[in-house]
Amino acid sequence: MSDENRHVVLRRRPDPDVRADLFEMVDAPMPTIGDGEMLIRVIWLSLDPAMRGWIADAPNYSRPVAIGAPMTGFTVGQVVESRHPRFPVGTIVQGRQGWRRYAVSDGSDIDRIVDAAQAPISTALHVLGMNGATAYVGLIDVCRVKPGDTVVVTTAAGAVGSMVGQIAKVKGARAVGVAGGPEKVATCLDEFGYDAAIDYRASVTIGPGLDEAAPDGIDCFFDNVGGAQFDAVMDRINVGARIAICGTIGMPSFPLPTGPRPNRQLLVKRARIEGFLILDHYDRFSAIVDELAAWYRDGHIRYREDVTDGLEGAADALVRLLSGRNTGKALVRVGADQ
Amino acid sequence: MSDENRHVVLRRRPDPDVRADLFEMVDAPMPTIGDGEMLIRVIWLSLDPAMRGWIADAPNYSRPVAIGAPMTGFTVGQVVESRHPRFPVGTIVQGRQGWRRYAVSDGSDIDRIVDAAQAPISTALHVLGMNGATAYVGLIDVCRVKPGDTVVVTTAAGAVGSMVGQIAKVKGARAVGVAGGPEKVATCLDEFGYDAAIDYRASVTIGPGLDEAAPDGIDCFFDNVGGAQFDAVMDRINVGARIAICGTIGMPSFPLPTGPRPNRQLLVKRARIEGFLILDHYDRFSAIVDELAAWYRDGHIRYREDVTDGLEGAADALVRLLSGRNTGKALVRVGADQ
Repeated sequence: MSDENRHVVLRRRPDPDVRADLFEMVDAPMPTIGDGEMLIRVIWLSLDPAMRGWIADAPNYSRPVAIGAPMTGFTVGQVVESRHPRFPVGTIVQGRQGWRRYAVSDGSDIDRIVDAAQAPISTALHVLGMNGATAYVGLIDVCRVKPGDTVVVTTAAGAVGSMVGQIAKVKGARAVGVAGGPEKVATCLDEFGYDAAIDYRASVTIGPGLDEAAPDGIDCFFDNVGGAQFDAVMDRINVGARIAICGTIGMPSFPLPTGPRPNRQLLVKRARIEGFLILDHYDRFSAIVDELAAWYRDGHIRYREDVTDGLEGAADALVRLLSGRNTGKALVRVGADQ
Repeated sequence: MSDENRHVVLRRRPDPDVRADLFEMVDAPMPTIGDGEMLIRVIWLSLDPAMRGWIADAPNYSRPVAIGAPMTGFTVGQVVESRHPRFPVGTIVQGRQGWRRYAVSDGSDIDRIVDAAQAPISTALHVLGMNGATAYVGLIDVCRVKPGDTVVVTTAAGAVGSMVGQIAKVKGARAVGVAGGPEKVATCLDEFGYDAAIDYRASVTIGPGLDEAAPDGIDCFFDNVGGAQFDAVMDRINVGARIAICGTIGMPSFPLPTGPRPNRQLLVKRARIEGFLILDHYDRFSAIVDELAAWYRDGHIRYREDVTDGLEGAADALVRLLSGRNTGKALVRVGADQ
């Protein structure tokens, strides 16, 4: 890989499809650092379904990426120059350096220092990072999973979903996954330890599959999708069910889609639906990652990576992710590991 | 009033309208009591919107009233014969004696003994009873209201709604009521101390009214209605909003109506919708009523009663309640006070 600096910038907003030509790779000057700053060489870039929201103009929980600005993203990189006391040269950091080869940081956009001895450093972008923490907060804090509960997860083979399934098993629950296509269903069963998995593409409705996979009804529902999959689960919730809304990737952003009103089911079942955002739980991020790392050490956590080499392939890889064609956590290898 | 016994029985199920001729008043033998039993002379019968659900065959949180059986209902009565050690003759009890003049009880269908010195005994059926406790649990336990919050309540002038508004004020929140017609709006403002009240019948949408009444957005929403009123509030919730579903009187029971999907709003606003049922909180009923009684003593709680004289008018009064034409808590005076 070259030592020149490059950025990928956002050129246009989706209308509404996310296509690779919304982005453009441009040369950028190699930055110089000031006092209290460091230069980070980006090694890994995470691609996430939430990026669809980050580049849209629709109301969202963060300001959209500006047209002409480098695309934002979670990264793992190494400090290659430093005038910052907490981050000496050689430190591996997980931060928000975006779609760039090199970035200057004053530390405010660093999430944590990565211990390369604990696990491969790319895991700081998934099972021991934001995806793992998202699964943890949604299943443990929002759904309050208990031993014996039946947990249903959508996008069950994905970076977040596969962690929900594995944490459910750690906690003594029954894990039921919903995923798209026989390959992902097989991954759920063979790699991630789900008790049952349903292919939502195999039939018009996943209802009969859920009846078989969750014969005692559904106590916890971790939803990344919305729409018809959400409806089928809601029809089968138990009294006191807890539903965590983590994403809505199966629903158009605009206009607001319609569907069955959940009010009466929520009332009759005394159930709860709650949206959550991992960024609200930032203060607990390190503690959560430590707990996930302990489960990883004990052999409870497996993962798959879907790696694209080079920043020039990032936009295509994002489009692939948003169409559900990736298998495993979508990562871009921006630079060499060491 | 006569000393003969009478029941009102359910003859037919709604299809889907609740009409007075679903019910019939019949003579009944005067019951005799055994050991551990008592005879209760019913004085007050509560009419509640939930009765629509109790007589329907649709899935619900309780078994429907059987055809030919006396209609169920919350009552206040006086023990007139007793072979039960805890309930001597003269005791005033709040229980579930149903639409009857006289009922035998072994104590299992008694909710609490009423202190006639505390307040008029009819209040045990509303502000110091199930309605008050419902408002308390929904606003304090489910919505977790805080000082400075903006609270929106639907059916704001109703038996539950008016208590939600008054508890919101006790807790230092801004109370915004939504009610049907100028008379109920005036009642909200003049009697129940709401900061603002909106007539949902005055225009197609209550959106502009909410914009004016809740300029800082909505933190807590206590909903008895569903449908268009629910949608208008959801469009204006703040980050971290809490929504308690207490009823769905504005939504048809069958088929399940459709509407805007709330998933994306819940996610972006990290908000929560939760259905609750006061019967799940029975173990705390006495403690909650004690707290409500203290607020009543301190002058924070006002109420209105809409009284129908005689069990023979109960069915018509229920139809009137379900069409929103009552003003105040709907009660039937079944027998003389003492």
